[in-house]
Amino acid sequence: MPRETLVDSRQEILRTAARLFQQRGYDATSMNDVAAALKLSKGGLYHYFQSKDEILFEIMNHAMDLTQERVIDPVRAVQGAEERLRALIRRHIEVVLSVRDREITVMLHENHHLAPALRKRINARKKEYVHFVEGLIADVQRARQSKASVSPRAAAFALLGMINWIYQWYKPEGALQAADLIPQFTELIFAGAFV
Amino acid sequence: MPRETLVDSRQEILRTAARLFQQRGYDATSMNDVAAALKLSKGGLYHYFQSKDEILFEIMNHAMDLTQERVIDPVRAVQGAEERLRALIRRHIEVVLSVRDREITVMLHENHHLAPALRKRINARKKEYVHFVEGLIADVQRARQSKASVSPRAAAFALLGMINWIYQWYKPEGALQAADLIPQFTELIFAGAFV
Repeated sequence: MPRETLVDSRQEILRTAARLFQQRGYDATSMNDVAAALKLSKGGLYHYFQSKDEILFEIMNHAMDLTQERVIDPVRAVQGAEERLRALIRRHIEVVLSVRDREITVMLHENHHLAPALRKRINARKKEYVHFVEGLIADVQRARQSKASVSPRAAAFALLGMINWIYQWYKPEGALQAADLIPQFTELIFAGAFV
Repeated sequence: MPRETLVDSRQEILRTAARLFQQRGYDATSMNDVAAALKLSKGGLYHYFQSKDEILFEIMNHAMDLTQERVIDPVRAVQGAEERLRALIRRHIEVVLSVRDREITVMLHENHHLAPALRKRINARKKEYVHFVEGLIADVQRARQSKASVSPRAAAFALLGMINWIYQWYKPEGALQAADLIPQFTELIFAGAFV
């Protein structure tokens, strides 16, 4: 099989598994269920993933890959501390609201059991992202000689909470859409953390 | 059995069940597991709750009761729009950080399967709380004749995200404690939403 097809198939499996895990619950979904939803034989599925644990880990890891590719890497290329932070807020909200990957990114924060070694790897990537956001906020505070008493760490957790919480209330047909949300959350953080 | 004992026992069951659901996963935990952890017979547990679904619903409902008793009711009694919002931020953070009830409140936001009628009741209570917070923020914006372009709705979701997300990163032994977090999150919202 050409490598492209393999990569596409893996992502397709992860998306389908993430959807099933959310519809039926992680524990209640079997490898058989995942294979059936994909019209794969059980052997066909095991060709890609050895276990449900591995699928869960790869879903979370893929969510962090998406964050790396669509948020961290492009943000690093932006000039200017303020513009970098604005780009981060916009891009992170876009990832969270992406219809295609919503189920993948939601899984990142659900409390399911992962072998300690795998959990550690995901937590290390999450921590790295928190530090990245914290650094951007510290840069803007310095650039603006801000008098805010909000520390970069507290502001980073606040920002990540605001954004990662969106999936709890967001409705595609609701009044509050990405186009309104991005400027409002950006203003809230800029006014709140850079007095 | 006197009523007090019944109420205490129910809460004890809910706390233990919530802890097990988080340690082992909701689907992977059986009514037998819950009974065993409480040193109850299966019949003894069914005396209180008919099913695991009912326990899950009652955990979520109890989390909303805690919000009502420890946040909404006392906040309503506070004089002055600003002081009411400050009290809400402080009290909600205290509920989220309460060691005794942490597992109960976390369950409120996990994505588990609940019969649609029960899910509806929980969602109605959550929605009522969002409206309460939104109303407080609108009151402060009016009182301050704020020029902020952040709508009370967006600010309410931002605030609830900041606070409800705390359980994802908070460590009792970490550098950021409730005593630091409350004033920083309060400043962030006050500066951010009431420019």
